Formats: sequence, C-alpha cells, structure tokens
Amino acid sequence: MSDNTTIGVGMVGYAFMGRVHSQAWRSVSAFFDLPLRPRMAAIAGRSKEHTEAAAAQLGWAAVETDWRELVKRDDVQIVDICTPGDSHAEIAIAALEAGKHVLCEKPLANTVAEAEIMAAAAAAAPGKSMVAFNYRRVPAIALARRYVEEGRLGEIRHVRAAYLQDWIVDPEFPLVWRLQKDKAGAGALGDIGSHIIDAAQFITGESILGVSALTETFIKERPLAAASAGLGATASSEKGEVTVDDAALFIGRLSGGGLASFEATRFAAGRKNAMRIEINGSLGSLAFDFEAMNELWFSAGGGGFERILVTEPDHPYVGAWWPPGHGLGYEHTFTHEIRDFLEAVATGVDPTPSFADGLRVQRVLEAVERSAAEGSRYTTVED
Amino acid sequence: MSDNTTIGVGMVGYAFMGRVHSQAWRSVSAFFDLPLRPRMAAIAGRSKEHTEAAAAQLGWAAVETDWRELVKRDDVQIVDICTPGDSHAEIAIAALEAGKHVLCEKPLANTVAEAEIMAAAAAAAPGKSMVAFNYRRVPAIALARRYVEEGRLGEIRHVRAAYLQDWIVDPEFPLVWRLQKDKAGAGALGDIGSHIIDAAQFITGESILGVSALTETFIKERPLAAASAGLGATASSEKGEVTVDDAALFIGRLSGGGLASFEATRFAAGRKNAMRIEINGSLGSLAFDFEAMNELWFSAGGGGFERILVTEPDHPYVGAWWPPGHGLGYEHTFTHEIRDFLEAVATGVDPTPSFADGLRVQRVLEAVERSAAEGSRYTTVED
Amino acid sequence: MSDNTTIGVGMVGYAFMGRVHSQAWRSVSAFFDLPLRPRMAAIAGRSKEHTEAAAAQLGWAAVETDWRELVKRDDVQIVDICTPGDSHAEIAIAALEAGKHVLCEKPLANTVAEAEIMAAAAAAAPGKSMVAFNYRRVPAIALARRYVEEGRLGEIRHVRAAYLQDWIVDPEFPLVWRLQKDKAGAGALGDIGSHIIDAAQFITGESILGVSALTETFIKERPLAAASAGLGATASSEKGEVTVDDAALFIGRLSGGGLASFEATRFAAGRKNAMRIEINGSLGSLAFDFEAMNELWFSAGGGGFERILVTEPDHPYVGAWWPPGHGLGYEHTFTHEIRDFLEAVATGVDPTPSFADGLRVQRVLEAVERSAAEGSRYTTVED
Amino acid sequence: MSDNTTIGVGMVGYAFMGRVHSQAWRSVSAFFDLPLRPRMAAIAGRSKEHTEAAAAQLGWAAVETDWRELVKRDDVQIVDICTPGDSHAEIAIAALEAGKHVLCEKPLANTVAEAEIMAAAAAAAPGKSMVAFNYRRVPAIALARRYVEEGRLGEIRHVRAAYLQDWIVDPEFPLVWRLQKDKAGAGALGDIGSHIIDAAQFITGESILGVSALTETFIKERPLAAASAGLGATASSEKGEVTVDDAALFIGRLSGGGLASFEATRFAAGRKNAMRIEINGSLGSLAFDFEAMNELWFSAGGGGFERILVTEPDHPYVGAWWPPGHGLGYEHTFTHEIRDFLEAVATGVDPTPSFADGLRVQRVLEAVERSAAEGSRYTTVED
Repeated sequence: MSDNTTIGVGMVGYAFMGRVHSQAWRSVSAFFDLPLRPRMAAIAGRSKEHTEAAAAQLGWAAVETDWRELVKRDDVQIVDICTPGDSHAEIAIAALEAGKHVLCEKPLANTVAEAEIMAAAAAAAPGKSMVAFNYRRVPAIALARRYVEEGRLGEIRHVRAAYLQDWIVDPEFPLVWRLQKDKAGAGALGDIGSHIIDAAQFITGESILGVSALTETFIKERPLAAASAGLGATASSEKGEVTVDDAALFIGRLSGGGLASFEATRFAAGRKNAMRIEINGSLGSLAFDFEAMNELWFSAGGGGFERILVTEPDHPYVGAWWPPGHGLGYEHTFTHEIRDFLEAVATGVDPTPSFADGLRVQRVLEAVERSAAEGSRYTTVED
Repeated sequence: MSDNTTIGVGMVGYAFMGRVHSQAWRSVSAFFDLPLRPRMAAIAGRSKEHTEAAAAQLGWAAVETDWRELVKRDDVQIVDICTPGDSHAEIAIAALEAGKHVLCEKPLANTVAEAEIMAAAAAAAPGKSMVAFNYRRVPAIALARRYVEEGRLGEIRHVRAAYLQDWIVDPEFPLVWRLQKDKAGAGALGDIGSHIIDAAQFITGESILGVSALTETFIKERPLAAASAGLGATASSEKGEVTVDDAALFIGRLSGGGLASFEATRFAAGRKNAMRIEINGSLGSLAFDFEAMNELWFSAGGGGFERILVTEPDHPYVGAWWPPGHGLGYEHTFTHEIRDFLEAVATGVDPTPSFADGLRVQRVLEAVERSAAEGSRYTTVED
Repeated sequence: MSDNTTIGVGMVGYAFMGRVHSQAWRSVSAFFDLPLRPRMAAIAGRSKEHTEAAAAQLGWAAVETDWRELVKRDDVQIVDICTPGDSHAEIAIAALEAGKHVLCEKPLANTVAEAEIMAAAAAAAPGKSMVAFNYRRVPAIALARRYVEEGRLGEIRHVRAAYLQDWIVDPEFPLVWRLQKDKAGAGALGDIGSHIIDAAQFITGESILGVSALTETFIKERPLAAASAGLGATASSEKGEVTVDDAALFIGRLSGGGLASFEATRFAAGRKNAMRIEINGSLGSLAFDFEAMNELWFSAGGGGFERILVTEPDHPYVGAWWPPGHGLGYEHTFTHEIRDFLEAVATGVDPTPSFADGLRVQRVLEAVERSAAEGSRYTTVED
Repeated sequence: MSDNTTIGVGMVGYAFMGRVHSQAWRSVSAFFDLPLRPRMAAIAGRSKEHTEAAAAQLGWAAVETDWRELVKRDDVQIVDICTPGDSHAEIAIAALEAGKHVLCEKPLANTVAEAEIMAAAAAAAPGKSMVAFNYRRVPAIALARRYVEEGRLGEIRHVRAAYLQDWIVDPEFPLVWRLQKDKAGAGALGDIGSHIIDAAQFITGESILGVSALTETFIKERPLAAASAGLGATASSEKGEVTVDDAALFIGRLSGGGLASFEATRFAAGRKNAMRIEINGSLGSLAFDFEAMNELWFSAGGGGFERILVTEPDHPYVGAWWPPGHGLGYEHTFTHEIRDFLEAVATGVDPTPSFADGLRVQRVLEAVERSAAEGSRYTTVED
C-alpha cells in the first residue's frame, strides 16, 4: 500500500498491554473504514530473544532492543507506549520531539510533575497525542456519555464509582511491579482508580473539584516475585515491602454541584474486574458494570431501569461489528481507541483523552494522596 | 387468654410505621410459637377521630389522645413508639419509668444527648428496650450475619453500603416533616443512613471508628406541605426552607482494620428503596440489595457469586412461613423484630439492637455531621 | 360490628393453604377499604384437637369436625375450600346449594367431569364463586395483564411459561398426597401447571386452542410418608407407587394465532418456585419470574428490557401497602384475591377467575394428558 | 515461514460469516501456540470487484471468482465454507475430493439427503472435516460440558433451550435469503434452532430421540429485498412469499431419559441474540444466555445459582486471553473453533463437531418438520 494510505506504528513493551494493543492494530482496518491503515512496523523490548518472539507472535515486522532506536525509525510515525508508568514521560517526550504521534498507556505518568511536562510537550509538538483510557471506548460507556450530552439525566446529583478486583487477596501473592511505588507510582489508586476518575469526568463532562480520601495497604509485606513478568508471577521465599496502596476510597464534589464517591481496590473477593459506575441526575440515571460490559442500565426516573444491550447498529462503535446481541469483549475497547486515534491523526483533529486530560486525572490522584495523608481533609484538585 | 400467656401492647403513632407495626403485632402469633402472645390493647394519637378510625382499621381495642395516658394503662406492658424522632426520648423515658417494656422506632433520637439519656434510662429500668432497626430482621441480612459469624468471610476488608431512594427528586415535592430538622433531626443521613450504619455494624460485628463526610442539600426550598400526613403530602404555593441534608456520603475505618463507604440519598432517580450492602473479606464476600430482599449473594472467593434465595426452612425466620421460593415482603421484617422482642421479654434476655446500640448509631451520625461541617476531616466516633 | 358491614367466613382445611388464607382474611381490612369486612367465624377439620389448635393459632372463632356442619352455619356466608382437589366438588356444591359464596382452591377439581358439575352449580347458585388462582393477584402479573389490555404488546406471538420447583428431586422424598393421583388428580401438571395455564390465558386474554404434550414420572416408587402432613413429611422404609407425573411439557396454539410452550416440573434442581412467563408480541414483550415477584420486565421492542419494580402506588394493589421499593411477598397475593372476592360479593359482581375459568383450565389439563397418552399428537382443548 | 509450520486457508464467501471467520484466522496465532499457523491464502466470491475489496479489507492474499478454482489451489490446504446452506454439499465434497481439509458453516446442509452424502464423503476422504457450530466454543458452554462430564449434574432430567431473536418482527422487513427455503433450507429452525439442538446434545452428551413440534410463519409475505446483501437489506415495494418458518417449538425425549424443550424464533421482541439453555440434573443445574455470554450459572442443587464469570485462566480457552473479568465477545468463539480445528489437522485427530454430528442435527431438524407436518405427533429421529 502507498504511503498516503498507511501509517507505521512502533510499540514499546509487549506484555499484557502490548498484546491487546497489537490485536487492535492488527484488526482495526478489517472493521473500520479508515483514512489511514496502520502498518505494524516495529516493537521495542529489552531482551532481543523475547522481543523477537513477541514480534513473531503478535505480527510486528521488526524489533528494537532500545526504545530510543524505535522512536527514531523512519517507518514509524506513531509510537504506542505500553510500558509501566515510570518510563512514560521519557519515551513520550522523546517520541513527540522526534515528530511522532504518541499513544500512551494510562495513567499518563507516575507523578503530577511528570504529567505536566508531558502535557506541555504534547501541546508544543506537531504530533498528536492521546492517553489510553480505553474504558471510554466501551460502547456502553460511550452511550452513557451520549445520554448525558443529550440531557437525559438532567443535572448530575451523584456519581458512584468503584473498580473492584481481587487478584491480590491472597497474602502469598508475590510482590510484582504493580505493588512497587517506584515502578507503578501508586497501587489500586493509580492503576484502576485512574480509570473510574477518567470515566466519571468523561461521562458527566464535569470535573472533580476536591476530594476527601482514605487509603490502606492491608498486606504490608509479600514474597518477592521470582520473575516480574506480569500478573502471573510466581513467589519466592523472601519478602519485600508493599509500597503502594491496596485500596483507596474517596468522596468528592463535582463542578456541577453533585457528590461523587470512588473506590478502587484489589481486595474485593469474587469481583474480577468490576469497573462500575452509577450516575443519578435530576431526570434519570445510568448504571454500568464492566463484568457485564455489553449492558447499560438506564432509568428515565419514573419507572425502573432498562437493561440496554449495547449491541445495536446505532450504538457507538457497534455498527462496525456483528448483528444485534452478538457482544464485544475487552479487546474491542482498544480497537475503538485506535480507530479514533487513527481518525484524529488522519484528519488533524486532536484526539481525546489528551495528555491534558491525563494530567487532570493525575491531579485528582495527587489530591487523593494528599487528603489521605492529611487526615482525610477535603483537598482541592489543582488546576 | 390468661395473663400468663398474653401481654398487652400500646402503640404511639399510627402513620406509616404504625400501620406496619400493627400488621406485625396482629400476625406474629399465627406464625411463631411464642411464650407470650400480644394483645393489641390501645393506641395513642392526637386526634380522637383519626385515632379511633385507625384503631378500628388496624385492630386496636382502645384509644388514647395523650400518650401519657397510654403509658400509664394497666393493660399495657409494652409501649411501641412509632412517632417522629423528636418525641422518642420523652415517651420512651416515661414508659421505662412506668415499668413498661419499650420498642422504639429508629433513629433512637434526634441528638446524641437525647440518645444518651435514653440509653441510661434503659439501663436503669426493669423493662426491656429495643430500637427498631428492622433491616436486621430481613432474612438475607440475618443470614449475612450468620455467614460472618461462621468465619466464611475471614477478615473484613471492605464494607460498601448505600441507601438510595428517589422520592424527593422533584423540586416540587413538598416540605414534609422528614425534611425539617426540628422534627426529623436529620435528612437522608438520619432516616436511611442510620439503617446502613446499623446494618454494617450488625453484619460485621465491628464498629465504625471514624469517618470523613460530605453532605448536601440540593433543593434548598420546597413548597410547604398542605398537610403533613406522610410521604403522600400535597404541596401548597408557599415555600419553606429545607433544613436537613438531601444526601450524605462518608467513608471510614472499621474496628477490624477494614475500610467502609456509605451513601444515603433521596436523589437517586429510579432507585426506590435500594438499601445495599456489600462486604468483602479475606475469604469471601456478600452482597445484598433490599430491592431484591429475598436474595443474598455470596462468593467464597475463588468463583463467582451465588444468588441464594433466602427462602429455605433453615434460613433465619423463614421456617415459620411458606415453602422454599415463596418470598417474604417488607412487613415481615417487623414481624420478625416483634417475635424476637416478645421472646426476649418472655425469657428475660436483653433484646438487640438495644438502646445502647441505637446510641452508637447516633454517635456515628454525629461524627458524620461534624466531619461534614469541618472540611471533611477524619472524625473519631466517640464512645 | 353490624351485619351490614361484616360477613362470616368458614374455612375447610388448615394446612399450607389454610394458613395463608387465614393470614389474608385476618389482614385484608387493615389495608383495603372494603364494603364488607370478614369475620373469621369457623374452620373445619377432621381432628378436633388439631383443628382447635389451628383455630387458636390462626384466629378462627369456632371449629367444626365435619365440613357439612360448617357449610350449614348461620354465621358463615363465605365458604373457603382449602382441601386437596378430590373433595372440592362435594364441598363446593354443598356450600353453593346452602346459598353460600364459595372460594375454592385450585385446581378447581381433579377431573373435567367434576369441574363441569361445579361450574354448572356455580352458574345456578345465588352465591358468588371463585377459584383461587392467586398468581393473578401478584401485582406484577396484574400489571402484565394491564399492559396487554392497553395494547402495548400488540399481537401475541409467543408465550413461554414454566413452573420450576425442586422439592422432590431426592428419590428418598416420601410419597406425600401430592404424589398420589386419587388425592391430587395430577402431579406437577395439575398443581403448578394449572397456574401457568391460567396465568397465560389471563395475561393474554386468549385461550389455548390445542396442545401437544409429553409427561414423565422420573421416580416411579418412593418411601411411604410416615405422616401425610404436607411437604415436610418424613419417610418410612416401605415404598409405594408414584401415580402422578413428575413433569409435564406441552406446546400449543393460542386463539390469537400465537405459539405457546409450557413446562411444569418438580425436578429443576436449584429452582425453588420459579413460576415464569415471558410473552412476546408484535410491539413488545413482558417477562416475569416469581422468584423475583416484585419485578416485571418490559420491552417496547426496540431497546432492551426495563426492570419495573412493581411497588409504585399506581401499580395494581400496591397503593394499599408501603412506599415504593418496599416489596410484597407470597401471602399478599391471597390478601388481594380475598379483597377482590369480598368486593365482588359486596357489589354483586361476578368475581374472576370463575368456576367456568377453572373448568377451562381443567380442560387444558385433560387435553395435555390425552395428548401425552396418544403419542403427543396435537389435541384440541374442548369447549 | 516454512511449509511445516504454516497451512494455507481458502475461504468461500465473505459476508457476515466470512468476516468473522477472517478475524479468527487473522488472530488465532497471536493468542494460541499452534503447531500450524494459518496463512490466509485466498477467498472466492462471484463478483471480482467485491471479492477483491473484501480480500483487501479482511487480509486475504488472493481472490478467485469461482470456488472451484479456489478448491484446486496448491497454496490452499483448508477450505472454509461460509456460504448459504444450499451450496455447502457441492463445495465441501469437491474440496474433500481434492484432498483438502474442510471447515463448513452450519447447518451442514439444507436437507438430510445432502448431509448424508457430505458425511459419507468426509468419512472417505483423507482430509479432516468439521461443521462450525461455534457456540460449542463459547467458554461458558465448554465449561458447561465439562461440568456434565465431571458428573456435577447427575442424571439429566430437563433441557430447556431457546434461541430468541427479533430482527424480523417488523412485517416490512424484506424477504432476504434467510427467509427463502431454496437458499436457507429452513427458517428460524435451521438457522438458530440447529445451534440449540447441537448445544443440547453437546453439553449433555446425549441424543434427542424423538420430537413433537409446532412451526409457524406469522408473516406470510414480505417486501422483496432490493439487494440480498445480508441482514441489513433494504425493502422494495413488491412482495414475495416467505417460504420458511418464523418460529419452531418442539419438545422431545433425550437418550438418558430426560425431557427437553426447544424454541427458535425471530419474533421475540426485545431479545437480540438470546441463545439460552438450562439443564436440570438429579444433582445440579446449569443455565446460560448468550446475551451475557461470559456468564454460566450453576446450582449444586441445595442452594442457589452461582454466577460464574467464565473468565478465569483455568476456564476453557480463557487462559490464552486476558486477566480475569476481562470478557470475550462473539468473535472469539470462532477463534477457538479455528484453534481446535488447526490443532486437529496438525495432530491428525478428528475434530468435532464432525460432519456426522452435523448430519445428526439435520436429522433432528427433519424430524421436527415431519412432526409439525403430521399433527405434532411424536416423531423418532432416525439414525
């Protein structure tokens, strides 16, 4: 295909996020009519052997063992960052400075300071940039946003968001990188709390003004991971300190006058990926749970809640796929994200969520941490 | 029937709560083998005409227009207080001092000060006393308590409680007594927040140690009620100030080290009586929603959640009623409460929840209000 | 109370059905404004001792040990028949001939022949008569009927009804009277199949024209019951033949051109009282499951299904009870039934379901049995 | 890649089924470690232009305008048949005779006669063959099969299966090929009824011995389709006869002694793709609904039903994908199917469901049609 209709992609990291991004890059053109079709040009990883194996399995044409090389490649116009948060800033800024478009996994960074620099770099750079809060591209969540925009909820009175997982309930689960502050920045708060903060602000179109928070680390020490290769790591006999939160709860005020509650935890036994959000407005309400991701519940106030199977052709993103009732899965949220990103790159529009949006989430995270550290006092989210 | 097998009951108030208590007094002996069967001796109300009509309809033998007279009656051994919170203390103390047993609607009082006096009076009096947190007698909630007691949840990590209603979403809904601080003491917080505080402490067997809170009154003024006769009041053209909270959110710490979140609101459009509680422990989890009151959801951690239809003969209270699958309703929680109260009176055991338990809830409510007034700072619940 | 405002009730039988009818007679006037209030005059049972104990517990003023005496009593104007089906005809006809009003448990009789005589007697008698298909008085089912009447479903295409229980899954469950053809008439088919036949015809307003059926008795022999006292009977070591069906499946045609399927079984492990009905019309659909009896699911076709919590004041029967979201239970279906029966008696209107409606159900049951006996061939329901 | 590790695939047809098969061929090696990786060699379609566009979009290397050419290609070892049922036999037999492996969409054929010839050809040919009942590869259905195999259900008493859609409720929906007997063979019965027949036999491991059936065509005439391009066809003003069933209901007996009911309809307003199956055994029960495809409900009899989120690593197929709670979608059932097919081809094992399994389903379909034509009489499924 000609240069005018394709665009080269380079991806950094090939673990959990890299696998699902690869599937999205591989599939997107088969379902969406795009002005630009992605070419899966190269991936970067530290180990040549592992990176080559990943490239072969995931369908990437070339490999680099240094992301700096990948960022410089001429056949790469988009850099897709799928590494832990501690390296986001360095890679993203280098890529932006090299004139590339950047798609960066969430949370944008591990600190507000880094996120600020990234947002500034994004604003100054010619390339487009986007932070990968993929839940915005769940069709049910996109439909929820549409309902709010259409005024079906009226004034927002309440947001009730929780992200519940249970993969570290067992005290013998090892100390993987997601439990170490230097790599992950935060625990449940940053990893999954950031998703519900973004979703709440996205769906309502409002900002979280301030928060009051409690955080806790239930298991202070865990066996060191024999290998840090993701969620499935095995444990060693030595122990190390857990330096992030296991759970974070916070309540806050929204810019429109409503009240919101948030909870992020990896200690909700039996809840696997319950990313839930319920919104109550003066005219109606919405409820969603990712464990049933093809459903959105809507109440027009008077009656009950309608279970909308978000699989109709006129629902967001759905028309590209299957007939009604033939549900989508987790991976499709990434396909949709990449579709929107490619569309934005091709048409010159700024994609969302932007790095500025990512910074905004980071500021909420920081306010949560400050509030938790200062006796839960109400803490304003800085602008 | 002889004096040894029956006991006289006098009830103060005959509105919503009076009607459901009456149904419980009327029905309890037909289903439970009790050492004492209640005689529905008398009710008290201000208007002779209305009180007589209520007595005729609800099946009470006599009427009084002054509760002081009712409390003195020789044929009354139990005083059942179904009035708004501002009169609880006076009636309960008088009844206790008259040597009667007292069942008092919740919340125990409108202030901690009143509740303290009541608890002290209860401790000093010969009669038995109980505060009517009827949700403890939902079979599913009693079963939840049993599961926790049996150790099936392990250490409690999270309580996630909400009580969601929507009956005042409409700004034109009138200013009924429940929206006036002098009569109701508090708004959603006291009326329905008290239920989830009690339920959380009851099921877990733990105390709420401290809280951080936000409260809000979304609609500051409402039409004056043409008549204050309960939820169905009609509106007048004049307006008055809403002096209670419309919604209260708080997060807190439990005595066992867990985190808890609570939300009480009457602004959750489409939620009618969603008294919900989810508890996550180190070994398992429970979830309940009163809108499906015959169901309890239990997870043993590894797998999913089991929907237990709490209608089996060996479930709490259920054996007295119908075959499996033939559900109970709201009113039966009161029948169960009265059964337990009569059993306690007959056997000389102290019933629960006691006035001391009611005081404890009151102290949590007060900590919530103090925290909300002081920038949401973490506020210890006093002992 | 004067003779003009009360009416005497005599009940025959005091087991499961007698208990729930008693609760309804006892409660109905406290919640509904009735032109006639019931007086619980007398019950009849074979054993004087047991009947007196039941009368004391359930609140009946007098006892008879022969139903023939009860039927003659001057203080009894309504005879409520709560016995097994083999005695319905004799008692009902005697009561009707004595000029009484008759409420008869379902199924109306054990055979079409008996049901015909009963329907004829009812037509000829001055008294009112009604067969107790109580599920018509589940608020959600009454609301379903209302929706069909309002045309919200359009033409009925499908009825999908099942009544699933599991109380005899265990082969050691004893041979209680409900498993004996001479007493019960039929097994699952007559006991619970009759309910879904009546509900399907009631909600749609149509008739079942013909059926094709399969029946089965999975467990051919069971231990004799040590005592025949209801569902909770204990087993003896001797065995006897099960002479009724354990399960019955049938499909059929409706008078409006739709297709219907029915299944009645006591072998659905884990289903306690899943009386389910789903109706699909050209414009919309309805779904109901008694295990969540306060919910009706409605689809207007285009979108999803709305979960209507049938607890709003304008829902059938509900206004008499509690605020929205405070659900009802199994027993209330009987209170509603008795309310409607008393209203009909007082105003001289013929109550429904009539004995003729009961006969119609009986004819469907008979067609099912004939079809099952004749190679499942399509069998017309006789008029 | 070398010949030893890859295998060439040729696909006939590129509409709905072709699109989803393509996605599966494209994705399978990225997630499953396969002894053979598919090469997407060529697709065949009648229009050169449309086929080339499809090949470009879906990722196929070459095109043919005659399937006979595709079947002969040296770079094609697997022929994947995604055409309507009337051409299955001819293509499959040609491919088998050419020594190819064949994956054929369901139902296997439009008649038993064709299916018999196909099954015989498959038995005689060196290539492997499989009929694409993809629902067997829904993880929840594969897990259901595992539970039955493990004996968790005991003896099967009941199967209750329904496949409910609503896409032709509107009488103005046009006469697409699926509504024409010469192309589609049958209507709802063949298209979706075949899926629940196969699923019932697969999960239980039993055969349907005989059936009694009713079928109906509610809308006898429909507007001719302006273009026959799938479900989304637009209507013309001329009308044509609908020559297939709109709905089919049947009840039957299973080889293990149980009873089964089936319903396939496209007239269930509000049901989009409700492929439902509930199985009750002597020890436990299972329930599934494709509209919530990541959930399986299991009852061990005594208690309630557990909602198993079928997203755990040890659930069938799931380990290859994402962390727990990150659900799969419709397309993944095809990826799993193709994984199993490739595995079978590579290892020389016969894949299932075989053409013989497809024939068996066809025989049930034929028995249903015969029974419906002959007064619903019980009709034995031929061997």
